[in-house]
Amino acid sequence: MNFASDNTGPAHPRVMEAVVAANDGSAMPYGKDPWADRAVQAVRDVFNAPEAAVYLVPTGTAANAALLATLTPVWGTIFCHEDAHIAVDECNAPEFYTGGAKLTPVAGAHGKMTPGSLATAIARAVPGDVHSAQRGPISVTNVTEAGTVYSLDELAALTTGHGLPAHLDGARFANACAALDCSAADMAQGFDAISFGGTKNGCLGVEAAVILDPARAWEFELRRKRAGHLFSKHRYLSAQMAAYLKDDLWLTMARAANAACARLAAGLRAHPDVVFRHDPQANMIFAAWPRALHQALKSAGAEYYVMDGDWQTGPADEILTCRLVCDWSKSEAEVDRFLAIIRAG
Amino acid sequence: MNFASDNTGPAHPRVMEAVVAANDGSAMPYGKDPWADRAVQAVRDVFNAPEAAVYLVPTGTAANAALLATLTPVWGTIFCHEDAHIAVDECNAPEFYTGGAKLTPVAGAHGKMTPGSLATAIARAVPGDVHSAQRGPISVTNVTEAGTVYSLDELAALTTGHGLPAHLDGARFANACAALDCSAADMAQGFDAISFGGTKNGCLGVEAAVILDPARAWEFELRRKRAGHLFSKHRYLSAQMAAYLKDDLWLTMARAANAACARLAAGLRAHPDVVFRHDPQANMIFAAWPRALHQALKSAGAEYYVMDGDWQTGPADEILTCRLVCDWSKSEAEVDRFLAIIRAG
Amino acid sequence: MNFASDNTGPAHPRVMEAVVAANDGSAMPYGKDPWADRAVQAVRDVFNAPEAAVYLVPTGTAANAALLATLTPVWGTIFCHEDAHIAVDECNAPEFYTGGAKLTPVAGAHGKMTPGSLATAIARAVPGDVHSAQRGPISVTNVTEAGTVYSLDELAALTTGHGLPAHLDGARFANACAALDCSAADMAQGFDAISFGGTKNGCLGVEAAVILDPARAWEFELRRKRAGHLFSKHRYLSAQMAAYLKDDLWLTMARAANAACARLAAGLRAHPDVVFRHDPQANMIFAAWPRALHQALKSAGAEYYVMDGDWQTGPADEILTCRLVCDWSKSEAEVDRFLAIIRAG
Amino acid sequence: MNFASDNTGPAHPRVMEAVVAANDGSAMPYGKDPWADRAVQAVRDVFNAPEAAVYLVPTGTAANAALLATLTPVWGTIFCHEDAHIAVDECNAPEFYTGGAKLTPVAGAHGKMTPGSLATAIARAVPGDVHSAQRGPISVTNVTEAGTVYSLDELAALTTGHGLPAHLDGARFANACAALDCSAADMAQGFDAISFGGTKNGCLGVEAAVILDPARAWEFELRRKRAGHLFSKHRYLSAQMAAYLKDDLWLTMARAANAACARLAAGLRAHPDVVFRHDPQANMIFAAWPRALHQALKSAGAEYYVMDGDWQTGPADEILTCRLVCDWSKSEAEVDRFLAIIRAG
Repeated sequence: MNFASDNTGPAHPRVMEAVVAANDGSAMPYGKDPWADRAVQAVRDVFNAPEAAVYLVPTGTAANAALLATLTPVWGTIFCHEDAHIAVDECNAPEFYTGGAKLTPVAGAHGKMTPGSLATAIARAVPGDVHSAQRGPISVTNVTEAGTVYSLDELAALTTGHGLPAHLDGARFANACAALDCSAADMAQGFDAISFGGTKNGCLGVEAAVILDPARAWEFELRRKRAGHLFSKHRYLSAQMAAYLKDDLWLTMARAANAACARLAAGLRAHPDVVFRHDPQANMIFAAWPRALHQALKSAGAEYYVMDGDWQTGPADEILTCRLVCDWSKSEAEVDRFLAIIRAG
Repeated sequence: MNFASDNTGPAHPRVMEAVVAANDGSAMPYGKDPWADRAVQAVRDVFNAPEAAVYLVPTGTAANAALLATLTPVWGTIFCHEDAHIAVDECNAPEFYTGGAKLTPVAGAHGKMTPGSLATAIARAVPGDVHSAQRGPISVTNVTEAGTVYSLDELAALTTGHGLPAHLDGARFANACAALDCSAADMAQGFDAISFGGTKNGCLGVEAAVILDPARAWEFELRRKRAGHLFSKHRYLSAQMAAYLKDDLWLTMARAANAACARLAAGLRAHPDVVFRHDPQANMIFAAWPRALHQALKSAGAEYYVMDGDWQTGPADEILTCRLVCDWSKSEAEVDRFLAIIRAG
Repeated sequence: MNFASDNTGPAHPRVMEAVVAANDGSAMPYGKDPWADRAVQAVRDVFNAPEAAVYLVPTGTAANAALLATLTPVWGTIFCHEDAHIAVDECNAPEFYTGGAKLTPVAGAHGKMTPGSLATAIARAVPGDVHSAQRGPISVTNVTEAGTVYSLDELAALTTGHGLPAHLDGARFANACAALDCSAADMAQGFDAISFGGTKNGCLGVEAAVILDPARAWEFELRRKRAGHLFSKHRYLSAQMAAYLKDDLWLTMARAANAACARLAAGLRAHPDVVFRHDPQANMIFAAWPRALHQALKSAGAEYYVMDGDWQTGPADEILTCRLVCDWSKSEAEVDRFLAIIRAG
Repeated sequence: MNFASDNTGPAHPRVMEAVVAANDGSAMPYGKDPWADRAVQAVRDVFNAPEAAVYLVPTGTAANAALLATLTPVWGTIFCHEDAHIAVDECNAPEFYTGGAKLTPVAGAHGKMTPGSLATAIARAVPGDVHSAQRGPISVTNVTEAGTVYSLDELAALTTGHGLPAHLDGARFANACAALDCSAADMAQGFDAISFGGTKNGCLGVEAAVILDPARAWEFELRRKRAGHLFSKHRYLSAQMAAYLKDDLWLTMARAANAACARLAAGLRAHPDVVFRHDPQANMIFAAWPRALHQALKSAGAEYYVMDGDWQTGPADEILTCRLVCDWSKSEAEVDRFLAIIRAG
């Protein structure tokens, strides 16, 4: 009953098999392996972007920070939601990779910037005023950190009209696609650079950094190397990404994760003591219930984060918020076991 | 016949099996997996350093740069051989991670700094002179970039007497240990931080960053995260390192690589047209022979780097230098096939 | 009628005379000039801090950024008001000098953080969570960017209780002292580092960076040099600062500036069409009135910033906010001329 | 008898008078002062570069580092003499400003790179190899750190043929011009960016950063601001530079400095115990003589740097090398007094 994160789940057997299969004899290093071309081509295909620069890195933080560094001058500022992973969960990685650019936090309920809150933030950075940070990229996260999903229209409303480059943090890109029932190319519309996540969705550790303008490819390669993210035995990254995209495995897994989450949400919704903090639209739930129920769940071995207090000590009826995340491997049985415990109380 | 690098070889089956075995159900992320403790403990054991801070990263550049950043203030300079990987093969990663420190190149034949050349370089950075870069760590590479191996006495002569921290770039640490027939702890003597390589020696991609002073552990963790090198699905790094160290697999593989290299060197030495640029003391050979022989080898499918010219075009008798590297997987048959071709001419 | 900024005013004759006097024959460079000791001692005296490290730099941005870099690790975040100069007017200088630390904006009316808003911001940076920026210094600006002045009690309420270092951006330190009728030492209470401004208050260009803990002195010297702010002909900085502090000239000038501002505010307050945005407590006024009055003032040669629109084009009765700043040199006549024009309409 | 540096000398009276004259009433800040246009125009005129971007900063380190940052990507390396000020006397300022680029030291006798040593260094940075630092600008210092002067032909031989941008560290630009009897435009031939020094040659503290390609102007402005080098009371920089260039004062002062140096060198050359380390071609002398003579000079109050030992303690006949620098203010009498002492022994 591990709902702590989608990064607690295992790699999908087909991904692992591809890694094992790639371990066959010698292969040239640094992305010259035969699996690399296949992986890059597969990414270009799902994005319908035959010219895109595509590079593999092992973590989402690396993909985000290296892409943002490619889009942001040192005197720039990145506009992102105030709860964005790049703003609060990467220990200043964007500031590091950009060489000292800034992030401007943008307010918004349920993890979403609004066109208005974004425009207000952008207006404060004054182009041509040497004292002000200059306007850099807009970075949007979909699925959001609140487990909600921007619609395609909502995305378009953020990325258009400002004349600024746009970055998509797609750590849960697949889950958003599955939720919206859209293609990767649909979701990428309007973005200049995309962190296309694999790690949270059934890979061991691989993300594709996608840059639509191939003129920026070489710069990205240098930034990746300089950050220590160019793998010598690159084939193991290639093999993961190739298997991830083959036969829509990425979508199959995301749909499974979202379905498990929906089942869990439905069960919780039926519980009189459960309150939802945000509408769970993909594979994450933010909900609250009394400490006594947390204690029952935790004692039974359930793993998940309690956000705002100590579940072990305090009044039994105090309401504590938690986060539950489903990855591709969550079974109906596992979900139902969780629900049975909370129902039993 | 791939002698291009030790990073062209496959992972050892036992390493791969450990990765597959770790893919079993859920595991907590970011180094809280059960394999992590085992891996860290195994590293501490081989270094006989029960208090050491040990962290896993996926590449040698990441290990080097993050460790150097921990040892070097932004106003410092790192003393290293002028051909060191950190100086010429990491696209300014140390400068990036340190936030703008400098590297001072130290001269020396056959890839080795000498006590004299090092002392001369150190003397130029004047402590207490605000205009000068301040003295930072000494970084030593063993096996060197020239395929030679510092003896333990040579290492001690570099690391002692300057009152400066010392870093060991051990991308081929195992091969150096095997060559010297010493323990890891012996080789680590006098060093404050060690990049303990696994990638080139039979892993998929893992290096242990070892810091002897545990007071620097937290800083390193923050630097690793900020650089995007903290793996969420950390178990796959843990599993590699644990398997690598189990039952001395790391030494077994290094010995195999060195033996293959010795067999190759012996065969080449017997050839009248082969000249050695450096004495091959571990698993790398720098040697030279006429273009015609390169053409024969390349045509037969041999893979290796020719350093100083185009092997395809030019006079048949022009002498061209090349690098040959053996990893753990090189068979006697593969070596012998190479030798047979060069003998046939 | 230049009320654009206090940096539009001239240097005080006594400051200029000191510079001229320092131009006498040879003097050793880099702060070894005889005026340096006098200046440093004078700063220590007014702060009643005989051990403090004191360094001179030419701009407020340099003082702020270099001091913050001394207090903030690269993985840290600086807590400051969302309108602080370091946040919005220094083109990412703090991010640059710190090597990629972050600023966390803290909300608050009239340019002031409140204990509550500060505590909320601090709570979001979680110590020991490697994903989060770690808590760095609290930076407070007095006089605030809104022209208000924190009381000594308000300052203490911000700097105490968090176990974090505190930095005071004192670009208008003297004006705040004059407003509070307190000593420099009183205002410095609770701060670890102070940007003690001279430029805006009658100098040509000099700020004292004051670090209470002398153990950090050498680090600051290296940071200053590395940023190109160590003056070779340092005597001209020394002479300014020594003259600035001699016979309380700094306070005399600040009182004059505040008095001119108070006179201006009183006159404006009497005008039926003038609205104050903040209470002018030192030498800055934020006020609003109809475009027609702006047009009258500007046509008569008044210089000042209109913040939120084009004073030249638009409805005559539209209300536009402006900023008026008085430096030490503003005469009563100049103030009265401005008031006469706005009264005439 | 201060020959410690040209930065120990006073500002020229006409420069100081210009500063005093600029202190007249209000002036708009940040380079909008009326003296700024005059200064910028004067710089463009002497360089015969009507389109050049010209910015004033207070120190040579700031000019060098900000210009190099404009020319060098973070993955680049700067080619410069191994004794260049940017390499050994700026505490990693170029590494800081560039965000972690590298400097590649180039060997050469008497402070001069040769076309051969430069080409060798450039060849080591391999374009298109992601592991290597990429080729950045060539930085040349004239007058060199050894007091020698590159001829115009020597400069052209360094700046042409590599397809790389070129930077001129002209901390002693005027002295080089005077030595070569060439125009500023002649010396600037082939350079993309020039640090045009004023501080060492009779100013209080001002350097012009000159960028020939105006398309890079805005970037430089942002870098200057972000480094804290945009002066609010910019008029005092403007006034210095305008006076410096008016009626060729800069050349008059440089010629005076060079003449004093030549007189000093001639006197020393006549002394049997004096050995020259480099040929003094501008305003610096590197020479050696026995400790006893140093003791005589120092006891008489002569100020200069002894480079390689303690002049106070040791054998009287030990030869110690020293540096002597003349600024514009050195009188014949002062030079002759020095010579009289050394002659007396």
